[in-house]
Amino acid sequence: VLGLDPDPMALWPGARAPAAGSPGQRAAAAVAAHCRALIDAAGPACVAVKPQLARFEALGAPGWEALRAVAEHARDAGLLVIADGKRGDIDVTAGAYATALMGTLPTPFGGVEGLGVDMATVNPLMGSDAIVPFVQVARAANAAVLLLVRTSNPGAADVQDAELAAGGPLWERLARLVDSLGAGGAAEGAVQAGLADVGAVMGATQPEHLARARTLMPRAVFLLPGVGAQGGRVDRLAPAFAPGRAGALIAASRSIASAHRASGGDPAAAARSEAERLRELAWQVSGQR
Amino acid sequence: VLGLDPDPMALWPGARAPAAGSPGQRAAAAVAAHCRALIDAAGPACVAVKPQLARFEALGAPGWEALRAVAEHARDAGLLVIADGKRGDIDVTAGAYATALMGTLPTPFGGVEGLGVDMATVNPLMGSDAIVPFVQVARAANAAVLLLVRTSNPGAADVQDAELAAGGPLWERLARLVDSLGAGGAAEGAVQAGLADVGAVMGATQPEHLARARTLMPRAVFLLPGVGAQGGRVDRLAPAFAPGRAGALIAASRSIASAHRASGGDPAAAARSEAERLRELAWQVSGQR
Repeated sequence: VLGLDPDPMALWPGARAPAAGSPGQRAAAAVAAHCRALIDAAGPACVAVKPQLARFEALGAPGWEALRAVAEHARDAGLLVIADGKRGDIDVTAGAYATALMGTLPTPFGGVEGLGVDMATVNPLMGSDAIVPFVQVARAANAAVLLLVRTSNPGAADVQDAELAAGGPLWERLARLVDSLGAGGAAEGAVQAGLADVGAVMGATQPEHLARARTLMPRAVFLLPGVGAQGGRVDRLAPAFAPGRAGALIAASRSIASAHRASGGDPAAAARSEAERLRELAWQVSGQR
Repeated sequence: VLGLDPDPMALWPGARAPAAGSPGQRAAAAVAAHCRALIDAAGPACVAVKPQLARFEALGAPGWEALRAVAEHARDAGLLVIADGKRGDIDVTAGAYATALMGTLPTPFGGVEGLGVDMATVNPLMGSDAIVPFVQVARAANAAVLLLVRTSNPGAADVQDAELAAGGPLWERLARLVDSLGAGGAAEGAVQAGLADVGAVMGATQPEHLARARTLMPRAVFLLPGVGAQGGRVDRLAPAFAPGRAGALIAASRSIASAHRASGGDPAAAARSEAERLRELAWQVSGQR
């Protein structure tokens, strides 16, 4: 999975902006051009893109438009789109977030199309009644939801690793939520028979948790971020692929987009080469299950 | 606190849209008009507005513009703005979310101004290293962060009430994060001496937790949502005001915007009347500490 995490101060040299417009409009155009070039270069070695919504939001309304354009470019290139927004809220608010990403909002002036993504990351802190609206909207759109279970950052230990009185860390309780909420999704729309439409974000930086996570969530797609810049190693991710090669998605962002800083040369060529290298590693490890 | 949670299918009759434009543009204009009218009617009885970001996001780029216009209208009316987005992510991504709300993003084309809000709600599931970037951006902007601690929905029990092996529910651990991260914020910018710049979202539907929450977070501003439609009662919130009248913010959304459905008459008059009634109750209960 090609992570799209564009810093406007570190775009590829070819990512040009129009000469006129507000700073937000010009930066959003440059960010969109950068992401399109990155998709063109590394996309053929990937199955999906994962835009980091924060980066687009920081550009205001033009950023939201750029996100829509980038998602469309990725779809045209045959890639799935995973909106990494880690949204989470209750009730109608959760429904509105889900609609923005995977649905259509009814208004008196006609329906407002959401981004039309294939998967969206969701924060489960508020509990099942805050997650169900996301699952409902996703299911109606033949899309999927990926709940944060054990994230890749060191601070994840503060909360997700809290040991429960009932036994096991908190993230195992989140894993059980993933497993129970995904129950209805296996019939159709799953990328592979036996996979559910509620998956889990499991940081690649803690591969020691993957076998246990697989026991708790046998049918969930795992999104594995944290490879590369954060220190995760692809060759340790084999347990994630227990249900088959479609059972896990390995995501890398900076290590692909900034590959030229380590290797030198053209950014696009370096990105393609790094993406192909990671694909090869992923293919090997996914066959070792 | 006046919650802004506009459903495009349930706007006030006076909230008109332009005759031309895309459904998103027209609906966003109508939503902005509705919010402005609501602020004009109920704002004088309030200290802040709390836009629900999901509702604006579901309208795409025009929705983000509408959010900016509504925030500006509220500021012009002398109100604080609390962005209720419940964002949460790690590292540079957390920084980007915070910048979108409370900072300025540097780009080669000039700085892109964020929404300029005074407070933002943040989801702490990813731990302290995911919260610190929000606190840093907020502190630089003389703004504040409100962490979800115990939310108002029934499902909050699934995760936030999980009993820890070390004793106490998970939300108490989140409360301790609030208290420790807010330490540096009391010196200036606090609305009242002794209050910190990291606060807590404590659902008004569980007033039995407030006394314990105050013990754990003596200097935190509490945002108390869930009054009205969700069943929270103002007269049970006195413990939240232990540090003084600025120690807690009582939020209501649907009970104000939809007051005319219960009482009949003009939506603006009904909203003003309900906001004034809640202000009176809040004033009484905040003096009972």
